[in-house]
Amino acid sequence: MDSLVRYAENGIITHQMEALSHAEGISPEIIAERIAEGSIVIMQRDDRMTGIGAGLSTKINVNLGTSTGKVSVEDEIEKVRIAEMFGADTISDLSMGGDINAIRKAVFENSTLPITTVPVYPAAVENGLKEMTDDDIFATLRRHADEGVSSIVVHCVNRAMLESFRKNKRILGMVSKGGSITSAFMLINECENPFVERFDEVLSLCKKRDIVLSLGNTARSGCIHDCRDRMQLEELRQNIALAHRAHENGVQVIIEGCGGHIRSDRISKYVKQYKKQSPFPLFVAGPLPTDIAAGYDHIAGCVGGSMASTAGADYLCYITPAEHLGLPNPEAVKEGLIAFKIAAHIGDTVKYGKDAKDKKIAHIRATLDPKGQIVHALDPARAQAFSDEEDECTMCGEFCAIRIMRQY
Amino acid sequence: MDSLVRYAENGIITHQMEALSHAEGISPEIIAERIAEGSIVIMQRDDRMTGIGAGLSTKINVNLGTSTGKVSVEDEIEKVRIAEMFGADTISDLSMGGDINAIRKAVFENSTLPITTVPVYPAAVENGLKEMTDDDIFATLRRHADEGVSSIVVHCVNRAMLESFRKNKRILGMVSKGGSITSAFMLINECENPFVERFDEVLSLCKKRDIVLSLGNTARSGCIHDCRDRMQLEELRQNIALAHRAHENGVQVIIEGCGGHIRSDRISKYVKQYKKQSPFPLFVAGPLPTDIAAGYDHIAGCVGGSMASTAGADYLCYITPAEHLGLPNPEAVKEGLIAFKIAAHIGDTVKYGKDAKDKKIAHIRATLDPKGQIVHALDPARAQAFSDEEDECTMCGEFCAIRIMRQY
Repeated sequence: MDSLVRYAENGIITHQMEALSHAEGISPEIIAERIAEGSIVIMQRDDRMTGIGAGLSTKINVNLGTSTGKVSVEDEIEKVRIAEMFGADTISDLSMGGDINAIRKAVFENSTLPITTVPVYPAAVENGLKEMTDDDIFATLRRHADEGVSSIVVHCVNRAMLESFRKNKRILGMVSKGGSITSAFMLINECENPFVERFDEVLSLCKKRDIVLSLGNTARSGCIHDCRDRMQLEELRQNIALAHRAHENGVQVIIEGCGGHIRSDRISKYVKQYKKQSPFPLFVAGPLPTDIAAGYDHIAGCVGGSMASTAGADYLCYITPAEHLGLPNPEAVKEGLIAFKIAAHIGDTVKYGKDAKDKKIAHIRATLDPKGQIVHALDPARAQAFSDEEDECTMCGEFCAIRIMRQY
Repeated sequence: MDSLVRYAENGIITHQMEALSHAEGISPEIIAERIAEGSIVIMQRDDRMTGIGAGLSTKINVNLGTSTGKVSVEDEIEKVRIAEMFGADTISDLSMGGDINAIRKAVFENSTLPITTVPVYPAAVENGLKEMTDDDIFATLRRHADEGVSSIVVHCVNRAMLESFRKNKRILGMVSKGGSITSAFMLINECENPFVERFDEVLSLCKKRDIVLSLGNTARSGCIHDCRDRMQLEELRQNIALAHRAHENGVQVIIEGCGGHIRSDRISKYVKQYKKQSPFPLFVAGPLPTDIAAGYDHIAGCVGGSMASTAGADYLCYITPAEHLGLPNPEAVKEGLIAFKIAAHIGDTVKYGKDAKDKKIAHIRATLDPKGQIVHALDPARAQAFSDEEDECTMCGEFCAIRIMRQY
């Protein structure tokens, strides 16, 4: 089997492209063209195709997984269930605590969604950060590929960036976990980045199973005061160059960027700048336009995610209300996911004028049909709870503007 | 006693201006200048001064009150307590159900915040929509003024606008409750708008006690598909003209506009257009950039409110998660208020570069101090609940990026 990029380059429409065409209402020829130019990728899992990129609806990733501070397999399975039920497009299993291989297996068994992993996480846990070798990292990478992950994340921080980090004036230096583990590996072993050094091996692993390569965002800022700096620009430059190399080798690739903490007036600008420089789908974490919202970072993240998707971001990594405080519980996963469903949709209403769902709800409201609103709600049980179990909306009672205007 | 506008026009600095200067860190002379030009108003209640407008932090209004469908005085008192505790700037008592005069009294007794009412609501309830006369409306207006409200809302819809409404192609026609009651009055009595006809009386009532006149937004759209139309433009034109008339008569005035349901790419444009046409503070309800978020409209509203305040809106009316579904319970009021605290702050980080709170949290995070984060959270109890009662953040456990980078 050849890779989707190669088929697309040869003008061959595959069943994956057909399925995506059907789901998104775009012709398979256009999808093939965009895969060939790198602006669309398809994350595959069995019969499930999640397309990300130009002209496709904005997608949402749900991070889940244990940490060394908190392990509950039941919770993780419940998070998977919530991700499926409330409409996540992909899952990332970031487990680092407990029996991580068994947890990953449980995530696979309980989900139908494409799964992403960051192989350097389990490699560090299983081998120890100090003892881990680059062969250990690549063994984990290979294992995940064999297990059928749809996408893997690698952080391509280089030594020049680390030198910049050391000298920098950020309040919060490096806040990427994968980036910091990779950086620690480079500092402990006084070596260059193993993913960059052995990039051809990464590519051949990805190409073999058509795994989407996600180039991580080590240099994202950890507070809105930490602005775009030399590390961010250098990382973006390098990631775009690596993405071109991946794509030329027939590997589907996306770039993480414009995420983290960014003041709201800069979000749209950064996304648009990225889009001018790169054809590859943009994966954005958040972003958070303020640092004051601990406990409600899903709401701040919805604001940033709406701005990013409106400006052209293709794929959003959700943020839960537990962000900065602890590992999210299943309820926090649900709150985060729904907030980002709203953000993605707000983006799509502008990017593509996709307001059919809004129009449907507006017509339901025009008929004063509370049941219809609940059926079509993002979370029907919650919408029902606010409806007081009355037949009539209690918000305005008999002084309903719509009803009054109908009458007179 | 003369009105603040008159004092300001004569260059006299009053204690209200001094208090506002102290609260906002702007010189009292600048505040006086801006009150004189109409770009700042002060809502007063005893010793409490809430300044709204140019150069001042974005303020948030909490709507509360009963409806004919749901009456609980205890709930309303609890909502007042929540508004005070979580940092609302003003309260609007919109009660229409139960003993509304007693409820308003309870709202006064349990709060220190400036209170706004929409006198046409209780006038309609007490007299009946069909039986109510313009003298009844003005009697209610006078009563509220005598009781010490800080601001009143009147809807100045005119007959030409009603004619446009009849012909219009909106999915949801008129969704303003005060606007629809006023319109029904005009249609039933085949008359012009009593507030416009007797505008001098409105002004003299407001001026006597320096009540801020709020010109309501009858023509706001009820779904994102209903775009800016002739009614909205006509209302804006008329409201700006009436605001000038009010201001010339020594009355403090704000204009409600750019609220309701507006696609996200239009919000900033509308606010900026308003700011070019009018010096008066802009009061925005929401806006909601999507119609699909029933049950989570506080989150969609936070997105719209962030965009509006970033673009220059001065005063946001919050939206609760119960919007479109029912009368909000106290918990919904809390969720709505906190979402709009976030929106107002996001606006202020851009409008004024006010990021001191963000910077403080960033420094706390840099020291890995979970307790500090909780103390400074918008809702410490909720932040605490996500912290698993551990001394250490469980989000990343021992693989904390900040800690790893410190070590290596």
